[in-house]
Formats: sequence, structure tokens, C-alpha cells
Amino acid sequence: MAEHDKRYVHTLRVYWEDTDAGGVVFYANYLKFFERARTEWLRAHGFGQETLRVETGVMFIVSQTSVNYRLPARLDDLIDVDVDVQHRGQASLVIAQRAVLVERGQQAAAGMLLAEGTIRIGCVDAGTFRPCRIPSDILERL
Amino acid sequence: MAEHDKRYVHTLRVYWEDTDAGGVVFYANYLKFFERARTEWLRAHGFGQETLRVETGVMFIVSQTSVNYRLPARLDDLIDVDVDVQHRGQASLVIAQRAVLVERGQQAAAGMLLAEGTIRIGCVDAGTFRPCRIPSDILERL
Amino acid sequence: MAEHDKRYVHTLRVYWEDTDAGGVVFYANYLKFFERARTEWLRAHGFGQETLRVETGVMFIVSQTSVNYRLPARLDDLIDVDVDVQHRGQASLVIAQRAVLVERGQQAAAGMLLAEGTIRIGCVDAGTFRPCRIPSDILERL
Amino acid sequence: MAEHDKRYVHTLRVYWEDTDAGGVVFYANYLKFFERARTEWLRAHGFGQETLRVETGVMFIVSQTSVNYRLPARLDDLIDVDVDVQHRGQASLVIAQRAVLVERGQQAAAGMLLAEGTIRIGCVDAGTFRPCRIPSDILERL
Repeated sequence: MAEHDKRYVHTLRVYWEDTDAGGVVFYANYLKFFERARTEWLRAHGFGQETLRVETGVMFIVSQTSVNYRLPARLDDLIDVDVDVQHRGQASLVIAQRAVLVERGQQAAAGMLLAEGTIRIGCVDAGTFRPCRIPSDILERL
Repeated sequence: MAEHDKRYVHTLRVYWEDTDAGGVVFYANYLKFFERARTEWLRAHGFGQETLRVETGVMFIVSQTSVNYRLPARLDDLIDVDVDVQHRGQASLVIAQRAVLVERGQQAAAGMLLAEGTIRIGCVDAGTFRPCRIPSDILERL
Repeated sequence: MAEHDKRYVHTLRVYWEDTDAGGVVFYANYLKFFERARTEWLRAHGFGQETLRVETGVMFIVSQTSVNYRLPARLDDLIDVDVDVQHRGQASLVIAQRAVLVERGQQAAAGMLLAEGTIRIGCVDAGTFRPCRIPSDILERL
Repeated sequence: MAEHDKRYVHTLRVYWEDTDAGGVVFYANYLKFFERARTEWLRAHGFGQETLRVETGVMFIVSQTSVNYRLPARLDDLIDVDVDVQHRGQASLVIAQRAVLVERGQQAAAGMLLAEGTIRIGCVDAGTFRPCRIPSDILERL
């Protein structure tokens, strides 16, 4: 249930820029989709990434990604990307993310899993890129 | 006034993927931003690009782009991208587009012009890539 | 030793397009770097990806990626990306890949590990995207 | 003749990441191709972009791009991108660039014009992004 509280959903559209000559979303772009969702999730908790960097001197960087590509997304698809904190450490977070098809060709297609993965993000000093503790007021809110 | 009727605005957020080591939006990405706005503008008129391709056998392709980069956009900026049809030919459209800053660092910053350009799109057969007439029902609606 | 025979190295340069506002290579782009190396490795074995698709009707698609980001690459860095087949199945391959810094700021910097990962690629029918066996003449040569 | 002295050619390959669902190179990516060629051209004259930024405190930024897309490039194509200085000002350069097909499907296809454009680059202070003079030792060598 606590797990559930942490879930956040960001909805996005597939554009030409996201696709490749196979006619589907280029797999590397799911990392971008996941990132957008995490960014909006941070913002929903009151943290802009640029503001974070300027005000607290820390940045979140991605240190590990693992993604399974299940079914290809296509041009114009509407996709829900969720954010689910799996593990909270002092200097890093592990976040589970999924991309799920919501709409294709003006038809609802809810629930088709496109890709899912786990992203480890570490907190680093924005100047030195050295790992550092996640500021406590941030950690509390996430 | 007729001009005004044609204007459409799409709002987007700047994410890490959009920026470069200069700390600002990578200039080539404004073409992506412009494309997203045109895609949403087509959709607002009832045309998904994938549906267009499948149902009518035509695609819109970009044949010419001209962009002036005025002021750098930054991470987390909220941007309005507009779509304004300048010229409607039988097989092509010329569209004026602008990217305008709406919000930076949780502060309103309305009106700052980031980039503006002109995009020529041609209608082609989705199989042969040969130029063809814009289907009349599409042309009438745009 | 057999392992060693399989290793292939592709060298590439970091350009503005590859970086982000953190001043370093955007992590998702290592998947692009890995892909370029696999494409050149296939070509070195006599297979262009487009030719494969047209002539044999099969495509290789990426079904799983796992990447660890060790140290940030920077603008202008020269990077070696290697390709090392770890497992060869009938319809898929598992490939280990590493990105290693070769040159930074006109100075040799050989051996610094930037990122490493494992990529699973599956063979699919280019029309249906259904899994299929890797054609035997291809499998023998890789 | 002087014109000819300025011409520089960079050769590159089209990978999956460069294509879109139309089966061809995504038009915005020609700006990346042009940029890679300019970066290598600067390097051929002794200037790494990162070194420039660190050592002289100036950066070259793109202020205007105009591109005509002539014929679509495809996956695996080998492309020559050239760099031809058209105009040298005190704080900016105008560079003409073309992408020409060199090889397609293991066959020579020399001379087919894919895209051509004009890029205006300005010299700016790397900290303030304000326009500044191109350092004379750089201007002399380009």
C-alpha cells in the first residue's frame, strides 16, 4: 500500500522523432520516456531538476538501467509511463518503471505492456560528480 | 484574422534529453519541438499521422526548414510552440513556427522568443515518396 | 580464446548531440554507441542491416538492455566500443559491450571504463515482428 | 580556388538511431550530421570544441540554420558531409554544407545529393553566451 502511494504516472505521445526505420519506437528512447516521467514525478513533489542543481548543488544521475522491451510502440501511440520507488538508500534510489499503451489509432488499448525496467539513480555533487547524500528534505518527500 | 484562426499552440517541457553540454537546448531539437506541435495540430484537426499513412496512403514530409535561434532554452523550461499556416499549395504547406518561453524556474516568463522558423512540408505517396496532392478533405480542414 | 575471436572494436567521437546539460554524455546515448558498434560488427561479418532485412526478411531487434554507467564521457572524447558475443541461441544473442575512453583533450587516456552492459538481441520476421531462427549462414559467421 | 581550399569532407554511416518510421533518415538529424562535420573540420584545423571552451573561454553556437532535404537517406547508407566557409565575419561564420550519398547497399552511389544547407555560427563567451569576436588566431586558420 505504501508502495502504491509512491506510484506516479506521466502520459506522453509517440512522435516521428521517437521512431526508427523498423516502424516502431527506437528502444533506446524508452530511457528518455522513463526520464521524462521521473522528472515530472520530482516536479510533482516540488523539485525541478534545474532548481535542485542551482539551489542545493546536487544532481540526480543515472548509474544503472535495465530494460525489457515487450511490445513495440508505434507512431501516435499514447503511452502511460509510471514511476514506482522500489528502494530508497541514503545516496541512491532504485525506481521501477513501465511504459503501457493507453491509446492507438484513436482506439483505447489500455494495459498493453510495452517496456519495463529498473533505473538506479544516484545523488551527486553538481560540481564534482561525486556521490553524496540525498538531502533529507528531498528524501522525506519522495 | 484568417491568419489567427490557423494558429495552434502546443506546450512542452524541456528535459535532459533535449539539452547539450552548453547547458541549453541543443538547437537541432527545436525541429523536434516544431514537429510535435504540427503533429498535435494535425490531430486537433482530426488527423493522426499514422492513421493518415495507413488510410489515405499519403504522408507529410519536411522538405525545407529555416530556423533562427534567438535565446537559449534551459532544462525544465516550459515552452509554447505555435503553428501558423503561411501558405497552402496543392502539394505542400508552408508553416511558420515559434518557440516562446512560458515558465522558467517556477516563474512566469511569458513572451520571450526562443526560436522561430519556417517549415515547408510536402505531401507524398507513402510508398514511393513521390509528391502528390494533399487530399482535398484534409486541405479544407487545415 | 574462442571468446576473444568474437571481440570487435568500433571507435567513435563524442559530439554536441551526445551530451546533456550536465556537461557529459547523456546516459541513454550509450545504447546508441553500443548499437553502432554492433552494426559495424555485423557489417565486418558481411551483413548490412538493411540488406539483411531486404534479402532474408529478418531483423535483429533489441529485447533487453542492461547498462552500468561508470564514469562520464565528455565532449570530444574518443571512445572504443567493443562487441563480445556472450551467448548464442537459436533465435537470440547476448552481447557484452563496453565503452572505454581512448583520448581526451588530445591526450591518450586509454583504459578508463565509461560504461558497460549486456544487450540481448532477438531475430524476428521483418514483417510480423515474430521471433524466428537466426538464419544458419549468419549464425555460423558471427 | 580559395573556396576550394576551405572545403572539408567528413564521412559517416546511417544507423538505426538516425532513421524514423518513414524508413529514412529523420530530417532533423541532418543538422547533427552537419555539426559532426564542422566539429571534425575544426579539429582538422587544430581546435577541439571542448578545448576551445576551456582554453579560450569562447564557444561557437549555431544561430541560424536553413536546410533543403532533397532525397531520403536510408539505413546503412554511407554519406559524405562537406564544410565550405561562405562568409567570415568578426563574430560569426556562414558555412555551406551538403550531405551526399557515397554508398548504398554495398554499391557505390556517388554524387546523389541528399540535403544541403547553410549554417550560421556565432562566437560567444562560454559563460555569458554574449557574442564576441572570433579569436584572431582561430579566424586566421579556418
